[in-house]
Amino acid sequence: MGDEPVKSRLLPAIERYHPAAFTGSLPPMERSTWKHYLNWHVRRACPTGLELDLACAGMSDAYIAEHAPKLEAGLEAMQALEEGATANPDENRRVGHYWLRAPEYAPDADTRAAIEQTRDACLQFAAAVHTGDICPPDSRPFSELLVIGIGGSALGVQLLADALCDPLPPLNLHVFDNTDPDGYARILEDLDLARTLVVVISKSGSTVETRNGMLTARAAFGNAGRDFAKHAVAVTGVGSQLMELAVREDWLATFPMWDWVGGRTSVCSAVGLLPAALLGIDVQALLAGAAGMDAWTRSRAIRENPATLLAAFWYAQPGRAMVVLPYRDRLQLLSRYLQQLVMESLGKRLDRSGREVWQGLTVYGNKGSTDQHAYVQQLRDGRHDFFACFIRVLTDAPGDEAIEVEPGVTASDCLDGFYQGTRTALTQRGRHSATIVLDQLDAAGLGAVIALFERTVGVYAEMLDINAYHQPGVEAGKKAARGCIEVGLRLQQLLAATPKPQTCEQLAQQLNTSPMQVWMLVRRLVAQGRVQQRGEQPDSALFFTQPHIATPN
Amino acid sequence: MGDEPVKSRLLPAIERYHPAAFTGSLPPMERSTWKHYLNWHVRRACPTGLELDLACAGMSDAYIAEHAPKLEAGLEAMQALEEGATANPDENRRVGHYWLRAPEYAPDADTRAAIEQTRDACLQFAAAVHTGDICPPDSRPFSELLVIGIGGSALGVQLLADALCDPLPPLNLHVFDNTDPDGYARILEDLDLARTLVVVISKSGSTVETRNGMLTARAAFGNAGRDFAKHAVAVTGVGSQLMELAVREDWLATFPMWDWVGGRTSVCSAVGLLPAALLGIDVQALLAGAAGMDAWTRSRAIRENPATLLAAFWYAQPGRAMVVLPYRDRLQLLSRYLQQLVMESLGKRLDRSGREVWQGLTVYGNKGSTDQHAYVQQLRDGRHDFFACFIRVLTDAPGDEAIEVEPGVTASDCLDGFYQGTRTALTQRGRHSATIVLDQLDAAGLGAVIALFERTVGVYAEMLDINAYHQPGVEAGKKAARGCIEVGLRLQQLLAATPKPQTCEQLAQQLNTSPMQVWMLVRRLVAQGRVQQRGEQPDSALFFTQPHIATPN
Repeated sequence: MGDEPVKSRLLPAIERYHPAAFTGSLPPMERSTWKHYLNWHVRRACPTGLELDLACAGMSDAYIAEHAPKLEAGLEAMQALEEGATANPDENRRVGHYWLRAPEYAPDADTRAAIEQTRDACLQFAAAVHTGDICPPDSRPFSELLVIGIGGSALGVQLLADALCDPLPPLNLHVFDNTDPDGYARILEDLDLARTLVVVISKSGSTVETRNGMLTARAAFGNAGRDFAKHAVAVTGVGSQLMELAVREDWLATFPMWDWVGGRTSVCSAVGLLPAALLGIDVQALLAGAAGMDAWTRSRAIRENPATLLAAFWYAQPGRAMVVLPYRDRLQLLSRYLQQLVMESLGKRLDRSGREVWQGLTVYGNKGSTDQHAYVQQLRDGRHDFFACFIRVLTDAPGDEAIEVEPGVTASDCLDGFYQGTRTALTQRGRHSATIVLDQLDAAGLGAVIALFERTVGVYAEMLDINAYHQPGVEAGKKAARGCIEVGLRLQQLLAATPKPQTCEQLAQQLNTSPMQVWMLVRRLVAQGRVQQRGEQPDSALFFTQPHIATPN
Repeated sequence: MGDEPVKSRLLPAIERYHPAAFTGSLPPMERSTWKHYLNWHVRRACPTGLELDLACAGMSDAYIAEHAPKLEAGLEAMQALEEGATANPDENRRVGHYWLRAPEYAPDADTRAAIEQTRDACLQFAAAVHTGDICPPDSRPFSELLVIGIGGSALGVQLLADALCDPLPPLNLHVFDNTDPDGYARILEDLDLARTLVVVISKSGSTVETRNGMLTARAAFGNAGRDFAKHAVAVTGVGSQLMELAVREDWLATFPMWDWVGGRTSVCSAVGLLPAALLGIDVQALLAGAAGMDAWTRSRAIRENPATLLAAFWYAQPGRAMVVLPYRDRLQLLSRYLQQLVMESLGKRLDRSGREVWQGLTVYGNKGSTDQHAYVQQLRDGRHDFFACFIRVLTDAPGDEAIEVEPGVTASDCLDGFYQGTRTALTQRGRHSATIVLDQLDAAGLGAVIALFERTVGVYAEMLDINAYHQPGVEAGKKAARGCIEVGLRLQQLLAATPKPQTCEQLAQQLNTSPMQVWMLVRRLVAQGRVQQRGEQPDSALFFTQPHIATPN
């Protein structure tokens, strides 16, 4: 299997949706030679040096030529999107995250001004926190930053902080990114609330997890006799519940989100910029790096454009997962960030004409070389159901004590050796890979990497004719969750109102639901001591809220 | 696609290796009713209450009956393994991780004594550290624990610490799990070396990343004028380089590893027990939980045995990834732990008779409900290339401030509602799932979960007739890495010895390697200032180590 040409290993269900992709055959892997590399890498200073190395990606000029029309159409659609087309028609929204780092591209002066003013406001607010001009009531400076958000409102900040923060940042980051009270408690336990700035981030302003986190944080401040409003900032849509609350309670500040920025591409809006600036990250360099990559990937020269090349590579690997392997500890969260960006954008049931396509591109990975000790065994010896995306950084962090571990060899040389070794070992087995080579890991480089994947997702979605900017599949789960919570409330009311112990089936009948749902709910209430249970078997056990003396049936 | 029966969606390449699995058809999803649940869940106190809920797994009694012989043979093989058979014949090793929590099962008295003595020694050492009887030279107690290990020598500790540690553990955990000097520096920056206990873990004693981490830590102690040996402990194989070093330098202690414990199943050996005990984790409960699950999963009643049921479920989902979604922040690392356990065990090219099977089971995931805001869009609307494994915990952590977020509803109710909602939403789309339900999240419960997956991997590997206990695929990458490092050394020597600037091709000829390899190496040396470059293009640029005046060609 390892050395068969790619074509024969394709999954028929997928070939159906990519009929054109495999009429030409991909080159055998031995072509990943010097000459092949020279032909298959693109590089620019954008502003940090970044290269996309496709020497081991198995593509041919014929393959690109064949798909040139699709790739060019993808770039055209991206141009229309950047010019303000309603690229997300299902939600009747424009898609403007590219304007965030190049406001001059915004389709009108108001949008441009909103972007520039918000960016400047983020920077000014952060500077005032750093100088102590904005501080808690007792006038000591803020030292802790609690970000409350989830998904696109947390992952970007987490990635930026882990990748770019100095060892001693101006504020220490803590994140509520779920609705687990134990998770909240672990963070609150250690937190000096008197010196904590809270940034609550929710575009809609009504995200359940974020609202719960905010309520929990507010209660903690209240219990400590502190005025939450004097510690709190909101980043949210104008007119949202959260914005109303922040204004009503006179929070420290509010920053707007716009409906033309999706959560998963919001890192260059106040969602990412405000926390990043607070953490001392060079936000201007981040924006410049993203803008530089945008400028590069607008190029209609598809053979020199890393986004079209990467999209073409993905298109050649349908049904396979992308394993993201950065050889740098600081980039460990990149795979989670890309997991969201890619899977939420591309995991779509319908194409734009309503045809069922069940698309998607699975992303996973942590970091090299650590993962070589975890699952590289399967990558080399197991199913050919993935391709790899390596991240390589050429320079070490300034000041690293790269001691020699043997004469002439540093720990960092070993790290890079493992990258090269793994790439070679996978290539030998016919497993394809791309490598993003960064001259250095800095804010500009990370901004460029993020922008590269954003545009690749955009182009690839055009090739598949899907809407990359909505997420219709997440509603069903939220709705079902809401239903559970409501049945749970009615169940507790019913149990409180009925003295007689009852079975799941009896309770289900009265609640007009299934015994299964009652059992799912009631067993948890029992475990938490909120409901009593008599009997062990789910179908015969009796449930009640007050201790009852057993009555003969 | 979503509602087609499973059979038609199978990949032919996979069906080939599972000819038997699909002669019977799986039941349609609507069977996931109350009656179906009653028939498809198994539960025990082992010692914490644990249930495997397969109501949404889509299996039928006929399917189990059909595969009963394979499942029974799997259990028989596991019995032989537990009795000391050479279950890893390629490395001529027994497979004894089950003995670690039930030493009475060890095949001979010496092995039993070694297990018991090592376990007791771990506990005694940890207790002495906690009381201060073992302390650094200046007599203040140890407060920091630096674990140096990778893969199986780090992931278990990281999982246990994140899942089980109190907010104020007796020692704070830090981990070197790579060979990234920047990663080392970030940890060392903050570390009070005077109060740091270092535990170096490597079964072979020669793992490159671990050795580099140890050398870096030792250098840091040296730079601080401290005697590393007075802070260091080794967990390693008897007779390894690391053991020799520790004995020669008179480290604080050494603990043995045995060749019959694989790295990915070593969490119940000193590898996991020593750090866990140092962190104040209830190690005896962990062992008891694992032992309880082992006792349960030894059962020949395949329909009541969660390991055979889970293996049967996996077997019904060939080619699909397992998405691990624990609804508890503390279990976020479980997916990484299982990624290693499952993928390194099952990702195999050859079966036991040497036939190419290219097996594997991809594992990814982080935590619910956070991941619902990342990739659940694709799980519901995208490719049907996965099944889910949910972890649900019925009780909250003691002392959690589960404030009401609306009347009668806590943040934890919402978390559980999201679990139920997502399970329902996936089931509606014909996506299968299993749920492990824990009464509470404690050391016994986590031990039981780990033991459940260990035995499931064992039984499943038997069904596929593969060796789950070796990792032949990782050598190629290590060898290639070693080759890179050696060519890199020779390249530097060559450049130092040759005054004339040379191209990659010229250098490659003298080093008897490819220009591609030279370029990969030399560009990094250039980026780091160790080599000079003149010219931009990789194929024409000239490289040298001393600044030269341009000479006409």
